[in-house]
Amino acid sequence: MNAGVIGLGLIGGSMAIDLRRRGFAGAVYGCDANAVNAAAAKTIGLVDETMDVETLAARSDLIIIAIPVDAAIPVLKKVLDIFQEKGYRDKVVIDTCSTKALISDSVEGHPMRGRYVATHPMAGTEYSGPWAALANLFDGRAAIVADAEKSDPDAVALVEKLYDALYMRPTRMPSDGHDVHVAYVSHLSHVISFALALTVLDKEKSDSHIFDLASGGFSSTVRLAKSSAQMWTPIFLQNRENVLEGVDAYIEKVEEFRDAIRSADKEKLDSLIREANRIKRIIK
Amino acid sequence: MNAGVIGLGLIGGSMAIDLRRRGFAGAVYGCDANAVNAAAAKTIGLVDETMDVETLAARSDLIIIAIPVDAAIPVLKKVLDIFQEKGYRDKVVIDTCSTKALISDSVEGHPMRGRYVATHPMAGTEYSGPWAALANLFDGRAAIVADAEKSDPDAVALVEKLYDALYMRPTRMPSDGHDVHVAYVSHLSHVISFALALTVLDKEKSDSHIFDLASGGFSSTVRLAKSSAQMWTPIFLQNRENVLEGVDAYIEKVEEFRDAIRSADKEKLDSLIREANRIKRIIK
Repeated sequence: MNAGVIGLGLIGGSMAIDLRRRGFAGAVYGCDANAVNAAAAKTIGLVDETMDVETLAARSDLIIIAIPVDAAIPVLKKVLDIFQEKGYRDKVVIDTCSTKALISDSVEGHPMRGRYVATHPMAGTEYSGPWAALANLFDGRAAIVADAEKSDPDAVALVEKLYDALYMRPTRMPSDGHDVHVAYVSHLSHVISFALALTVLDKEKSDSHIFDLASGGFSSTVRLAKSSAQMWTPIFLQNRENVLEGVDAYIEKVEEFRDAIRSADKEKLDSLIREANRIKRIIK
Repeated sequence: MNAGVIGLGLIGGSMAIDLRRRGFAGAVYGCDANAVNAAAAKTIGLVDETMDVETLAARSDLIIIAIPVDAAIPVLKKVLDIFQEKGYRDKVVIDTCSTKALISDSVEGHPMRGRYVATHPMAGTEYSGPWAALANLFDGRAAIVADAEKSDPDAVALVEKLYDALYMRPTRMPSDGHDVHVAYVSHLSHVISFALALTVLDKEKSDSHIFDLASGGFSSTVRLAKSSAQMWTPIFLQNRENVLEGVDAYIEKVEEFRDAIRSADKEKLDSLIREANRIKRIIK
């Protein structure tokens, strides 16, 4: 089995590392629209060779599209078109994007739709590029397979085998349900973190020592604000309705908190904090 | 040198561990209004003996008040009263609270004011109680000494020696400047995290699988929401004006972000995210 990775950044590069060393893929081919990234990925050994999309599709049994979600949609269509033109009936293509409804819908009715599996491996860091690729990035995390009923059973089976090789927990769900969930438990966290960074960086303009006391608590809350615009702007735009619903609900909670502080309402603050503490059930 | 710790929780307990094993304190005495915590601290060996505040003040050269800031104010006054009544001229008392202006002002003009040093060791975790105490908790972090000019020079020197023993970086600043800084780089992060927890826990009422996809990003942003009401309500109330200023500025940034998503303004989102990315300068 040869794998082809389109997009040699954090996700694609990390997959390339583990798929080869764990014996899932014999050869790993790569493709990146950014020539520097492609050359770097080859130099640091993430992939055996780099090539264009057509050649990669010809030489790979499994094609992994790991680029920002706005760019992924035309590339996915292009790969399925190549499958159709060349008569590739057994190859499989997946994407790894953080939103699933729009990309899954974008190839609805394509004659080769069955060879595509919409997935989202729930792993990452705030860094990007081939230099950010890590071994074991995916171990133990959830891997979503969305709208599995629209893919051929053998394609889904191969993808579940792929995620097994990455030590992930494959979970099936509809793409729209996925997008609501990630709006709340992933995308909202990014909005929050970006806004915190902007607030404190703004304050720094009038108070140059504001960061002198930055603590571990601040670092963990603001960590995601290092994430790239290239990846996150398309996510916010594609998952717009769900993210807006989450952000509006969140603003209400911040205001409830703010009002309790403003009116020095000790009991209300105690009760809001105790309610928030129930998150201990969820996170370790 | 014997040390007395009032409040045997995360901060007091962790100080007790390191002050003894690093030879700064011969004996460490303890006091806690909560009998269970006091007994636990004795049992797990955080302190040699537990006793009431009067006895602790008599037997300790350095007294550390490590309780929530609302409770700390009367206890500090009580300790300084004991110093005065008993004629203790050489003992020193510090507090470790997250807000400094109100507590420092609360003993303004006290005849023994010089024996008190207002401090804030910038370390912690989201856990509390004697069971949460950790060795090396303070290593490498900043320790604020506020309004140092109001304390006797020998008292400040002793406290800087104390924080040296904890491997901290003592930094002097006025209490009001301290409170502005921590409002932005610590207290605001807690408001944000509590509000995120409340938002997603609320969503869970209608969508019981909302947490199935909770990722590492969510965990780090929501981590502080596990912090206790006992500690945080008094901080928000005592640092009310500064926290409100920070929260209001923050809400504006979230709204700016929200509006850019709502109007699908790709350029604005890109530019907000790139500006937020400048936080890379500050945090590793």
